[in-house]
Amino acid sequence: MPVVTLLSDFGLKDSYVAEMKAVISTISPESRIIDISHSIEKFNIRMGAFTLASASPYFPKGTVHVGVVDPGVGTKRRALLVETERAFYIGPDNGLLMLAAHSEKIRHVYAITNTRLMLPHVSLTFHGRDVFAPAAAHLVNGTAPIDFGTEIKDYVIPTFAAPLLKGRELTGEVLHIDDFGNIITNVKNKNLGKIEAKRQRFLTVKLKNKTWKTRFCKAYGDVAIRDILALVGSHDFLEIAVNQGNASKKFETKAGDVLSVSLER
Amino acid sequence: MPVVTLLSDFGLKDSYVAEMKAVISTISPESRIIDISHSIEKFNIRMGAFTLASASPYFPKGTVHVGVVDPGVGTKRRALLVETERAFYIGPDNGLLMLAAHSEKIRHVYAITNTRLMLPHVSLTFHGRDVFAPAAAHLVNGTAPIDFGTEIKDYVIPTFAAPLLKGRELTGEVLHIDDFGNIITNVKNKNLGKIEAKRQRFLTVKLKNKTWKTRFCKAYGDVAIRDILALVGSHDFLEIAVNQGNASKKFETKAGDVLSVSLER
Amino acid sequence: MPVVTLLSDFGLKDSYVAEMKAVISTISPESRIIDISHSIEKFNIRMGAFTLASASPYFPKGTVHVGVVDPGVGTKRRALLVETERAFYIGPDNGLLMLAAHSEKIRHVYAITNTRLMLPHVSLTFHGRDVFAPAAAHLVNGTAPIDFGTEIKDYVIPTFAAPLLKGRELTGEVLHIDDFGNIITNVKNKNLGKIEAKRQRFLTVKLKNKTWKTRFCKAYGDVAIRDILALVGSHDFLEIAVNQGNASKKFETKAGDVLSVSLER
Repeated sequence: MPVVTLLSDFGLKDSYVAEMKAVISTISPESRIIDISHSIEKFNIRMGAFTLASASPYFPKGTVHVGVVDPGVGTKRRALLVETERAFYIGPDNGLLMLAAHSEKIRHVYAITNTRLMLPHVSLTFHGRDVFAPAAAHLVNGTAPIDFGTEIKDYVIPTFAAPLLKGRELTGEVLHIDDFGNIITNVKNKNLGKIEAKRQRFLTVKLKNKTWKTRFCKAYGDVAIRDILALVGSHDFLEIAVNQGNASKKFETKAGDVLSVSLER
Repeated sequence: MPVVTLLSDFGLKDSYVAEMKAVISTISPESRIIDISHSIEKFNIRMGAFTLASASPYFPKGTVHVGVVDPGVGTKRRALLVETERAFYIGPDNGLLMLAAHSEKIRHVYAITNTRLMLPHVSLTFHGRDVFAPAAAHLVNGTAPIDFGTEIKDYVIPTFAAPLLKGRELTGEVLHIDDFGNIITNVKNKNLGKIEAKRQRFLTVKLKNKTWKTRFCKAYGDVAIRDILALVGSHDFLEIAVNQGNASKKFETKAGDVLSVSLER
Repeated sequence: MPVVTLLSDFGLKDSYVAEMKAVISTISPESRIIDISHSIEKFNIRMGAFTLASASPYFPKGTVHVGVVDPGVGTKRRALLVETERAFYIGPDNGLLMLAAHSEKIRHVYAITNTRLMLPHVSLTFHGRDVFAPAAAHLVNGTAPIDFGTEIKDYVIPTFAAPLLKGRELTGEVLHIDDFGNIITNVKNKNLGKIEAKRQRFLTVKLKNKTWKTRFCKAYGDVAIRDILALVGSHDFLEIAVNQGNASKKFETKAGDVLSVSLER
């Protein structure tokens, strides 16, 4: 039972997600459909790319991931089918798929043009249903990737800033605020260098013109309830959090904000 | 693996949706359950009917659709099983199912009365779990529609206003605001008549005492970001939208509002 | 196809729920995953326990329920596998699982310690993905409960207050506000005693320093639209509701508030 995942900015109020699932289960009744998220901020391709890349490593080999954050739908932007060493990605050529795909090594990228593998009537406003969903279902059914269209090399690649180490100070940015209000930064465990060894020491975090001393912990419960802490989260990124509280509200921060982290002497 | 869909106004916080799925998967372990939406506005039968009718055409033949927007639960309102030429609909007799069912040609409508096909204890507040879910599961398992109860003819039919063409001006109403804030009207592509041929011309849209000139486009991205546009959406209705923005907020409109559309000279 | 259910306070924005489903479907491709709720209030173990206990009786025998409301993740709190007479429960040792488990008679409780049945790398912030999800999948695949760890007896048991009858007055508390705003109390049908027989009589409800006379009904639609009513809901608890309205907003109440109910003379 091959897995098809869905990610979009559609929200859960309308029937849009269901229409995609309907198309997939009509063409490929045995596929297993799993939602990654449909609550990506409208048109926020970076948040979609981050969320897809967070989830994809945990799915079985051969999974087909469909992503639809697609403000350019119906314009000249292409539809892509990406084959990596462990999965497939289907969606618009706007960078959404490429953060996840790159981390798995890309084998081929195809521009989907074969109308026989789309719905008979393709609207210009909903390629998720009319192009991407049928492509995923046909792929799961065994259609070869090359049958969807020609291989291309000039697809859009999203750029994410890397953190910068200067002396004892690491400068990075807020990558994502999760539903708990945890502030997930672009600082990876490996970027922490000397800092990493110093758990249970204090870090100085500068964010939005505020400076906070926070303990560098292993688990949220290592500090008292409502206290600020820093830790390396479940995706290996440095996180600023509040034990049983909402760090994002406390710091009044959002994705894209600059922060710096340094080890207290 | 036959498909059962669920639509309700339950929201996703409580266990109500899960209880329906639990009942269905107990009686019919092989069925495939797909959510259409559980975020229908509380008690808004028209929004439920519209959403169900939007999704149902994309599901496989033989799908069993269960709808629960049911303010009359436990009163004398009947429970229905509707058989159309391509699917089945189960839910309250309040119009919820009939917009979708009518578009597929209705064969028979039964009032569900056979208590052997319900849960042993039927509450008066949750027929979704105690009557509709078991009915769907038994139907999927092969129970004949006539076994659920007697055929009836006097079921409730919802009325949706049709748009009115007067000279160059079409008067219609707002059918639905989707999660993007797109304003979906009851004006179908075929109602547009002469207007339809004039894509890339300007339409005058009157809505909530405001008048806007909008370009009549094919895709959201045909105008600049934040610009207003009109287009025929993925369900063949005329839509007023803002490219990467929220048209509903801009126009301060809601379902039921009257609008008129005319072609600029 | 054995059923695995998921309940958490993760919300639906992030990829956390999908990561758990990915792990389960990698290890146990044939399992059927059903969400109970992911909108439990953050860190609200009581609400999670109530919601899980509401849904679990409707699932098939042998279902594996995974619950993750887990503020103590990564600290010394244990991970549990509970075997009852009809199901299994997996999650943190903080009371979350025990309201549901107790109602089905507990056979054995194990502390999960076998690292061979976890993901290779176990983070200290996401045991839902790294410990509970793989445990559920291995259990579904046939691993014996005893293989997960040693049996324990000193697990955490949540306490829920019982209502108190004094003369004609029952004092209880608000257990849950559902998405409709219905006020679900901890007063069970059986606690109502003499009151129960007096449907269609009036009850006096005291809540938040307000006193309301309400009719004791069988269905929401037994009173006029927007009128207050009391009834025994679909889980056998006394509920205060407003027909097609929101009782919680009207009474400005929340879970934990004290209320009293008495029969009018």
